[in-house]
Amino acid sequence: MSGRSQGRRAWEVRASALARNTHNPIRSIVENLQVEPNPEKQLIALSVGDPTTFGNLNPPEQVIQAVRESIEWHTSRGYGSMVGHPEARQAVAEYSAHQGPVTADDVVLSSGCSHAIELAITVLANSGQNVLVPRPGFLIYKTVAEGLGIEIKYYKLLPNQQWKVDLEDLENQIDDDTAAIVVINPSNPCGSVYEKNHLNEILDIAARNCVPIIADEIYEHLVFSGHEFTSIAALSQDVPVITCGGLTKRFLVPGWRMGWLIVHDRHNILGKEIRKGLCNLAGKILGPNTLIQRALPTILKTTPQSFFDEVVLFIENQAKLAYEELRRAPGLRPIMPQGAMYMMIEIKMAQFPEFKTELQFVERLVSEQSVFCLPGECFCFPNYMRIVLTVPEDIMREACQRIVAFCQEHIVTKDKLKEIDTNVVLPNASEVICNDALPRVS
Amino acid sequence: MSGRSQGRRAWEVRASALARNTHNPIRSIVENLQVEPNPEKQLIALSVGDPTTFGNLNPPEQVIQAVRESIEWHTSRGYGSMVGHPEARQAVAEYSAHQGPVTADDVVLSSGCSHAIELAITVLANSGQNVLVPRPGFLIYKTVAEGLGIEIKYYKLLPNQQWKVDLEDLENQIDDDTAAIVVINPSNPCGSVYEKNHLNEILDIAARNCVPIIADEIYEHLVFSGHEFTSIAALSQDVPVITCGGLTKRFLVPGWRMGWLIVHDRHNILGKEIRKGLCNLAGKILGPNTLIQRALPTILKTTPQSFFDEVVLFIENQAKLAYEELRRAPGLRPIMPQGAMYMMIEIKMAQFPEFKTELQFVERLVSEQSVFCLPGECFCFPNYMRIVLTVPEDIMREACQRIVAFCQEHIVTKDKLKEIDTNVVLPNASEVICNDALPRVS
Ligand SMILES: Cc1ncc(COP(=O)(O)O)c(C=O)c1O
Ligand SMILES: Cc1ncc(COP(=O)(O)O)c(C=O)c1O
Repeated sequence: MSGRSQGRRAWEVRASALARNTHNPIRSIVENLQVEPNPEKQLIALSVGDPTTFGNLNPPEQVIQAVRESIEWHTSRGYGSMVGHPEARQAVAEYSAHQGPVTADDVVLSSGCSHAIELAITVLANSGQNVLVPRPGFLIYKTVAEGLGIEIKYYKLLPNQQWKVDLEDLENQIDDDTAAIVVINPSNPCGSVYEKNHLNEILDIAARNCVPIIADEIYEHLVFSGHEFTSIAALSQDVPVITCGGLTKRFLVPGWRMGWLIVHDRHNILGKEIRKGLCNLAGKILGPNTLIQRALPTILKTTPQSFFDEVVLFIENQAKLAYEELRRAPGLRPIMPQGAMYMMIEIKMAQFPEFKTELQFVERLVSEQSVFCLPGECFCFPNYMRIVLTVPEDIMREACQRIVAFCQEHIVTKDKLKEIDTNVVLPNASEVICNDALPRVS
Repeated sequence: MSGRSQGRRAWEVRASALARNTHNPIRSIVENLQVEPNPEKQLIALSVGDPTTFGNLNPPEQVIQAVRESIEWHTSRGYGSMVGHPEARQAVAEYSAHQGPVTADDVVLSSGCSHAIELAITVLANSGQNVLVPRPGFLIYKTVAEGLGIEIKYYKLLPNQQWKVDLEDLENQIDDDTAAIVVINPSNPCGSVYEKNHLNEILDIAARNCVPIIADEIYEHLVFSGHEFTSIAALSQDVPVITCGGLTKRFLVPGWRMGWLIVHDRHNILGKEIRKGLCNLAGKILGPNTLIQRALPTILKTTPQSFFDEVVLFIENQAKLAYEELRRAPGLRPIMPQGAMYMMIEIKMAQFPEFKTELQFVERLVSEQSVFCLPGECFCFPNYMRIVLTVPEDIMREACQRIVAFCQEHIVTKDKLKEIDTNVVLPNASEVICNDALPRVS
């Protein structure tokens, strides 16, 4: 047969380099953990960054109603335009006015904030270039970049200065191949919220080195009392900023995959090429689902401030609760967050010599106390663990008590070696506790 | 300042090569057309591959009802698993049993069929490799592949043999770097539906050359009376087949972005690597929206056959109507489709010497008759144009009459040069006609 000599003679199908180099670090780490919970205690997963998991936090009625209405419109079923329906983009522009002057043309709708991040990274960085991301930081950046041959470099956050950026380290990491600096504010996993002053310091570095910023603001406005959220875009003079956001966290609908990015480019540094590139890339999957796109204007305009306030207050109270409880845990140092929905906890590993790494600590915490916290390794930050704050109060209390008991049992102090009563009696969890499959984390 | 010497001193932000090399060919071509309609006649867009555009075709009540219910469940709001909810994947597996033995583990849910295609191409092909696609054919493959440095090579379809694959040409195109063969059946733009026998001939070539198949079956089951749809996966003995499908066309909900791919690999040629790679790649955007995922089992199980039958009958009748009308157009040769929702029409360019290419023909058809058909160039197939068959009957009739008038006016026959009356009086469109923005095509 004619072409035969040219084709292969045996089957050998490998996954592409791109596929092999695309990883979700959290998933890889979690899959390798021994996380068989103690059968005597119901599992409490403090690992899942999904505020809807426990059923205690729900989107406001207005949001649900907007989608109920959208379903009935035949216009919610057809293809949208590649960057999103103009009305939906207009609504995002208005909703995002706090970021600076934004028009519908600056907005690209995406399939969740993850997709917005993918678009931003992919349009700005070539294979061989690098993108700077915070350590500790949410690692979708790694997932998206490394398959494309884009290097992820880390700049330090300072745990003892409320996770502010180590500015010198940031500037030192910049080189000729740095395509973008990622700023996550409010932060996952730290829960830090940066003040204007600090954001300006970051902008100065970007300006001096002519590097654009990707601002991951999926937790925008989720800040506790006494703190204020400012979008870095609002402060930028000339540095181009692409903000990435969406409904996911603030509106409590992560599964709806409704995200967006906004291009802030007041001195036209990005030019047409970047906008066109974003449109090309968004065109690959033809935009996010139009059912939610059609509902978006109503969602953004009608959700009452009281809803947001209540959610933030709840999370803040949970943060205080967890902070107070965990301060009592010997060998742990919880760091009070200022926003988002997480708390980082330092594990003084020297005081737990049984465990070589925080991974082992976390594993044993599951097998003994059935409480699952994400090891710092998931954020490139060993010796810490992250808990989510969106779980119901009684479950949070129960989880903290179990963590305290665990630490009491395993801590080794100088003067008393394992003197502590290891048979602390714990109250049973009063209600059904999240029994979600463990690997579902983010 | 420390890092200063390392960064850039002036702003220069270019779009990445990936972004610059990602194009939607249809869009690029349409954007360059002069398509200002005749202000005296309402525009009829026969270009948009969206069956919902005109409002005459709607999803069945069962589908809408399934989503109405899903909205009320709090489980429809949280993150899904990266490859999709197990129940939704199970439902797709059952719905797709005609493709062969399929389990939930073989299914990956995606954000529309486009995303399934992106996943399939990206997992199978490396930069420098090539993927074979039919000419004429829908070009999402080009959009997805070229940015990644994957070459698109074409194999011929035979317009005079109902668009069957030119088997010799297909086999000749295969080389050592061929990572996959794409088979689009039923076809966009041809409307062809392949018989088992022909699919087996294609499989033989794939088997001989050890090249896996990507089967784009987004139009599965959309076949006219007297024809039968067979999934190529059902016939494959050893050739691994990844089928790509979704709700988009058959359920008339393109905007919902609910697609999937199914891995058929009966001899375990793809191994774990490809499945893991697909999971990695899907994880980048965390799956399609869970609102529709939750509704999917009900959608797939409760939509009555009568709904599908009615839609197909409507399209078939439109095809017959257009075929009969356009046969009367001098210089055109419509090719009766066997399924999908399109018809290809040959333009005998020699008989229209005014127009250098079919692009000019199509442009003038818009400016004079306000009828917009997609030029064959959009499918890498000059001298043809494609019309969609899902428009309402009266509009289809009106459009055909205008096309006939246009051809009568512009045709040049041997014996009579422009003898034909150029002032044909056309009836006005009786109703509101699609006035969609032109660039919204697919
Ligand atoms: C900092 C950060 N950015 C982006 C995302 C992804 O958001 P989405 O679910 O909208 O893709 C998350 C999710 O947890 C996150 O924590
Ligand atoms: C052959 C073919 N494959 C894939 C697609 C994309 O489908 P979806 O809208 O589900 O991404 C289309 C859309 O027109 C198509 O014609």
